[in-house]
Amino acid sequence: MSRRVERIDVEAGSRRTEPDDVVEEAPLTIAARGTDAAVTMRTPGEDLELVRGLLFAEGGPALAGRALTQVDADRVDVDADPAELAPRSFMATAACGVCGRVALAALETRAQTIASDLVVPAATLAGIPDALRAAQARFAATGGLHGAGLFDAAGQALAVREDVGRHNALDKVIGWALGAGHVPLGERIVAVSGRLGYELIEKVVLAGAPIVVAVSAPSSLAIDVAERFGVAVCGFVRGTRLNVYSHGWRVR
Amino acid sequence: MSRRVERIDVEAGSRRTEPDDVVEEAPLTIAARGTDAAVTMRTPGEDLELVRGLLFAEGGPALAGRALTQVDADRVDVDADPAELAPRSFMATAACGVCGRVALAALETRAQTIASDLVVPAATLAGIPDALRAAQARFAATGGLHGAGLFDAAGQALAVREDVGRHNALDKVIGWALGAGHVPLGERIVAVSGRLGYELIEKVVLAGAPIVVAVSAPSSLAIDVAERFGVAVCGFVRGTRLNVYSHGWRVR
Repeated sequence: MSRRVERIDVEAGSRRTEPDDVVEEAPLTIAARGTDAAVTMRTPGEDLELVRGLLFAEGGPALAGRALTQVDADRVDVDADPAELAPRSFMATAACGVCGRVALAALETRAQTIASDLVVPAATLAGIPDALRAAQARFAATGGLHGAGLFDAAGQALAVREDVGRHNALDKVIGWALGAGHVPLGERIVAVSGRLGYELIEKVVLAGAPIVVAVSAPSSLAIDVAERFGVAVCGFVRGTRLNVYSHGWRVR
Repeated sequence: MSRRVERIDVEAGSRRTEPDDVVEEAPLTIAARGTDAAVTMRTPGEDLELVRGLLFAEGGPALAGRALTQVDADRVDVDADPAELAPRSFMATAACGVCGRVALAALETRAQTIASDLVVPAATLAGIPDALRAAQARFAATGGLHGAGLFDAAGQALAVREDVGRHNALDKVIGWALGAGHVPLGERIVAVSGRLGYELIEKVVLAGAPIVVAVSAPSSLAIDVAERFGVAVCGFVRGTRLNVYSHGWRVR
């Protein structure tokens, strides 16, 4: 459920490469008697339980009671007619939560490598989470909101949005940026208040941002996507330290 | 973006009712020239930005450039043919993230009030997050996984599962419980490592669990659903204290 990667530790001016364990995230294909019916992002492990739980949530005990077969590491087959699954809403989507309609391969057809040579000092990036929190007016009151923000290369907040859904908060920020004529975000930094998974890095790439700052951990798939499309992923950005998981040349 | 509720503070044997602010969560309907096309759960605020961001993620700049109209507090209309939105994958789903195919009204047709008179001592509930963390073997290594667990009335862990997606972790637990013959979960306690939103409480209700323990904050909609279906929601369960947001009679 985790994968070993190399990360760059930046702290108080020093910089060294360390091994790190990041959460494994990978697409799981759900098939109905051999026909692919849905794809969902997930952390590998207990895939049969996951599919059974999904079938229960969508179709109740009758659908959840079908025989399941783990065909390979990333594919589970359900003993159901494809029509029984096709109209179900668990057909995974890119717009929501952790599910992804498109995996990395599909993103290739929709996104381009970030056309930006933006480089930002580590100290500027390290200050962004505090600025994000300061702008998250609601967080202190409720403790339940995810934040996302757009910052310029000097670390100044351009827009900060909040939502109970982390993908919604980022969609709001990108929606703002579209209206304000900032997209593609070649000279901008995207910040998120929590973890960085596939559903967020996909939005960052599509919007063309070269650097993303996450308060918490990135997933393996988020790092893969960032590496492929030219995005520097900074994780665990707290106080004077941060970890860089991809395209470390963007962090000075 | 927040709503005032009453909660019961339980700490070291004392118990009092306090006002609290919880994150507002409500369905937003996205219409195409007057025809409803999709529903997504979100925190109200910047709805036009949210829809623009969603359209961008799903259809690129062309779709994101359409005129948007906020019809009322929970509905945004897109100047697009319904067919332009219908095949898009952002049709919200119940199985993923924070989106919900069904709102509270639709859940009425699928779920029943919890048939259980389970009452559990506060001290038992307060110990569950530590037990959840102890069982989350991976968390310490990666810092990036959500956990969900099933506990008996004495606070003993029956199953703990992890995933990069919080809904996946809970689906895995419920999938395990289905296989082990524990559903409906009338005498069980569900625990989640983070926040409690609609997508999680829906799964708790469908599985028939009377008590849910969240390490962090519940949303307004999660509390509404729990109130309606007879679930005690315990939030911010840390150390010797916890907050109860619904059906406080289940916490002794």
